[in-house]
Amino acid sequence: MSQAAEDTEKLQKIVSLCKRRGFVFQSSEIYGGLRSAYDYGPMGAELKRNLMAEWWRAMVHAREDIVGLDASIIMHPRVWKASGHLANFADPLVDCKLCGERFRADKAPRAEVGADAVITLADRPRAEAAAERAKTVLEVALRRDGKTLLGAKVGPQGYVCPNCGSPYLSDERQFNLMFRTSLGPVDPIGDIVGVVRGAVAEGVDEHEIRVRVEAALEASAVYLRPETAQAMFVNFLNVQQSMGLKLPFGIAQMGKSFRNEVKVEKFIFRSCEFEQMEMEYFVPPGEGPKWLEYWKEMRLRWWTSLGLDPEHLRLRAHGADELAHYSDGCFDVEYLFPWGWDELEGIASRTDYDLGAHSRESGKKLTYFDQEAVDPATGKPGWHCLPHVIEPAAGATRGLLAVLCDAYAEEPADAEGKGARTVLRLHPRLAPIKAAVLPLVKRDGMPEVARQIVERFLAAGIAAKYDEQHAIGRRYARHDEIGTPYALTVDTQTLQDETVTLRHRDDRTQVRIPVSAALDVVTRALATA
Amino acid sequence: MSQAAEDTEKLQKIVSLCKRRGFVFQSSEIYGGLRSAYDYGPMGAELKRNLMAEWWRAMVHAREDIVGLDASIIMHPRVWKASGHLANFADPLVDCKLCGERFRADKAPRAEVGADAVITLADRPRAEAAAERAKTVLEVALRRDGKTLLGAKVGPQGYVCPNCGSPYLSDERQFNLMFRTSLGPVDPIGDIVGVVRGAVAEGVDEHEIRVRVEAALEASAVYLRPETAQAMFVNFLNVQQSMGLKLPFGIAQMGKSFRNEVKVEKFIFRSCEFEQMEMEYFVPPGEGPKWLEYWKEMRLRWWTSLGLDPEHLRLRAHGADELAHYSDGCFDVEYLFPWGWDELEGIASRTDYDLGAHSRESGKKLTYFDQEAVDPATGKPGWHCLPHVIEPAAGATRGLLAVLCDAYAEEPADAEGKGARTVLRLHPRLAPIKAAVLPLVKRDGMPEVARQIVERFLAAGIAAKYDEQHAIGRRYARHDEIGTPYALTVDTQTLQDETVTLRHRDDRTQVRIPVSAALDVVTRALATA
Repeated sequence: MSQAAEDTEKLQKIVSLCKRRGFVFQSSEIYGGLRSAYDYGPMGAELKRNLMAEWWRAMVHAREDIVGLDASIIMHPRVWKASGHLANFADPLVDCKLCGERFRADKAPRAEVGADAVITLADRPRAEAAAERAKTVLEVALRRDGKTLLGAKVGPQGYVCPNCGSPYLSDERQFNLMFRTSLGPVDPIGDIVGVVRGAVAEGVDEHEIRVRVEAALEASAVYLRPETAQAMFVNFLNVQQSMGLKLPFGIAQMGKSFRNEVKVEKFIFRSCEFEQMEMEYFVPPGEGPKWLEYWKEMRLRWWTSLGLDPEHLRLRAHGADELAHYSDGCFDVEYLFPWGWDELEGIASRTDYDLGAHSRESGKKLTYFDQEAVDPATGKPGWHCLPHVIEPAAGATRGLLAVLCDAYAEEPADAEGKGARTVLRLHPRLAPIKAAVLPLVKRDGMPEVARQIVERFLAAGIAAKYDEQHAIGRRYARHDEIGTPYALTVDTQTLQDETVTLRHRDDRTQVRIPVSAALDVVTRALATA
Repeated sequence: MSQAAEDTEKLQKIVSLCKRRGFVFQSSEIYGGLRSAYDYGPMGAELKRNLMAEWWRAMVHAREDIVGLDASIIMHPRVWKASGHLANFADPLVDCKLCGERFRADKAPRAEVGADAVITLADRPRAEAAAERAKTVLEVALRRDGKTLLGAKVGPQGYVCPNCGSPYLSDERQFNLMFRTSLGPVDPIGDIVGVVRGAVAEGVDEHEIRVRVEAALEASAVYLRPETAQAMFVNFLNVQQSMGLKLPFGIAQMGKSFRNEVKVEKFIFRSCEFEQMEMEYFVPPGEGPKWLEYWKEMRLRWWTSLGLDPEHLRLRAHGADELAHYSDGCFDVEYLFPWGWDELEGIASRTDYDLGAHSRESGKKLTYFDQEAVDPATGKPGWHCLPHVIEPAAGATRGLLAVLCDAYAEEPADAEGKGARTVLRLHPRLAPIKAAVLPLVKRDGMPEVARQIVERFLAAGIAAKYDEQHAIGRRYARHDEIGTPYALTVDTQTLQDETVTLRHRDDRTQVRIPVSAALDVVTRALATA
């Protein structure tokens, strides 16, 4: 089998195990399934909780400089206007193929068809990357300043990119990645019917009808957030002031986001409803590059600490042609998925773009003020500034898939044809169940002893599970497949000498330990795992 | 001040503290705020996490018979058709004022205007309650069977309630509490404009236009879940089979739900985006009443275990006129909010209504099968049945408000005019921060000692927080207001004898304890709280 076929097969096997063992089901499966949404079953829900709790612990609880936030999924539509996510539906959007800017065609700078286009990028690396891309369709030359491309002509659209002046543009199209809905119990569709009827009676054109329909919808339109990050900018001052925070500090949030993706693929990797773990780290102007270095290392280290194979993780710097025009640096943490390297997390230096955009749109000052700090400009105490931002934005849903891919293993049978198994080598901190407690049979007092052990574990906050269904071999196999690192078996000898067997998932070794020591042994094993 | 005015003032004070101390902010405040959505700040996010973690621990981790689920917010539209949440927007809905059934006017049983209406309720209590309500507008008599009302006439609508036959009905109206959106990147509004234009050109009537518009929307329409419960029914077999569960067993889920409420009110109590903690407990047919008794007691006990004053909690049985037609019993757990008794949780016996409805709509068998159990009908092993359901459905957002209301206290100044304070007497398990660790001053090595203490707490999984801003008195006041039960202060004496002061939030007493004992003392205090 080719490597590609093997990798595809591995993903299919993981999907199958996820359903069989209660990790992930297709949403609304009995109704034929819903495109691109998934339900996390009993084991998946625990695994996701554990993964996200690890992030929260590392990013919020273990740090003095970061606090949490849990904002609403539906936010004010102007949030998305300021962030650039919302563009008027009635006006088609265009992407610049050189700098990546997405803009409204009707607001773009007009230029005469066939005239010379002067393309100016932010800096030399971006300009060189753009020249490379442009030369397949345009005859361009890089001017001596290293930022300007010459030789392009304005195309039949009659406009150019408002950011860089490029005439190298996508087709115009209706597009929005956000889910739109309507706040208020009155259904706006009834209004729209009236609006269209009126407009048709007046004989106005298609574009004007669309403009009026959008105006009618606008009164109640709200959107599901396409990212959690904007809430941190919108709440910047509320959080900073209520908590008395000093720069540098961060605001962290985990939760669901929604994107109407054109292409959904690769199981839970790219879906319309997904979960994020994002943190905005606010720093004094000028300190962005330093903190970008810091956070890219910290984040890579965190993913490694989950037990992922370091060989399957890497940092990739964004090329100049990938950077947003306001960004001065970005790294991706990538994982080697069965289909190749793909993004787990982006760590971006966003300058003061976001706070500036919300400040302009809302008309509210979003500057940081520190009475005690010295203003570098004046040399006097009392410092106002618009902080810069480093954003480590991780995918929780993707993280969960990476964890599953890394943990999945098949072990062949031995010479006697025995012992073949599938095992999830999950890091014990992530495992849905830390210790399975198994009475060998359902009688002779074994269930009672097993249940007492479980109670002691639960009281200590360790997720133990009593399990008496099926023969002991089937139970071990089941717990191997859901990644339970330890199994404690209560058998006949337990009733005589108060010992149990402790079985290790990874090497299947078994040792006898006193019942009274079980909690200690497992607790210590978990702490050092 | 009257009691009512005092109660209103108390709620306002809680809202104010919530903003000042980082518990709850209005969503999108810098944009004038969004109607009925709230953001949980650093302290609110922790408090909500703790409350929901308590529920998960009690309902899932501590039990052998209940497993978790974490399903998508966007589900297949047919889920809501089966559940009764979705009615065709193009056809107005009517509520029966006697039995509470909501139905489509165009699907209701036709009856001649002025004809005798025969109203039949499920049982005598319901019939008596209905007769009581009906007599204000109808001349009715209860027939000897105790379930039938006579004397009503069919009204001008020309139809009666499909459930009980009543002509005592609300006006027809467009109404849906669900948020509708559209799945897929192509915006359906463009299509609708075309549909209306075409229909207008054909000269069809308003109702027909609306029908065509709804048909055009239907292809991509999806809804935000108005409750988490339906996912448990839809996933019933996937969960039962992947986990090998035997009746009785439960499936639990926490998460966001969305309702386009006509009236939003009372801070976070009734909002459009809110959080639920729901569990569906599947039992053998006939065992519903027994388990309803069990769960109503369990759930009341759980709310009490959070430290809520038992005098502020009560169970209220639903009257016959409040019960859904398929329900054979329901209790509310109510809390005495500042505005009076109001619902925290409903515990309903739902019979086999939900599984039956999804089975019919999906055409899939949703029966439980146990190979080993004896079928009571045949006396042979191999038992098929459609389980009945008890549903304890709690509001997490409401629970959080109840916790805040119960914990909020103002203490007057002493004879010398000192010591007035506001304090949140949160149960230590719920408190956002368990231990504040405070260096008296920011020098002389005190910060280092304090940080070492924090690290030891964090390593033990206890949320401790280092805090060095402002004078010690202001820090105590701040931690009283956010409900931190213990404060450890590092002072000059610490540097000499390695002791710290331990301050108790509730009575403000302080004792000196060795630094080395701090973790143990607080851990023990938390365990016994």
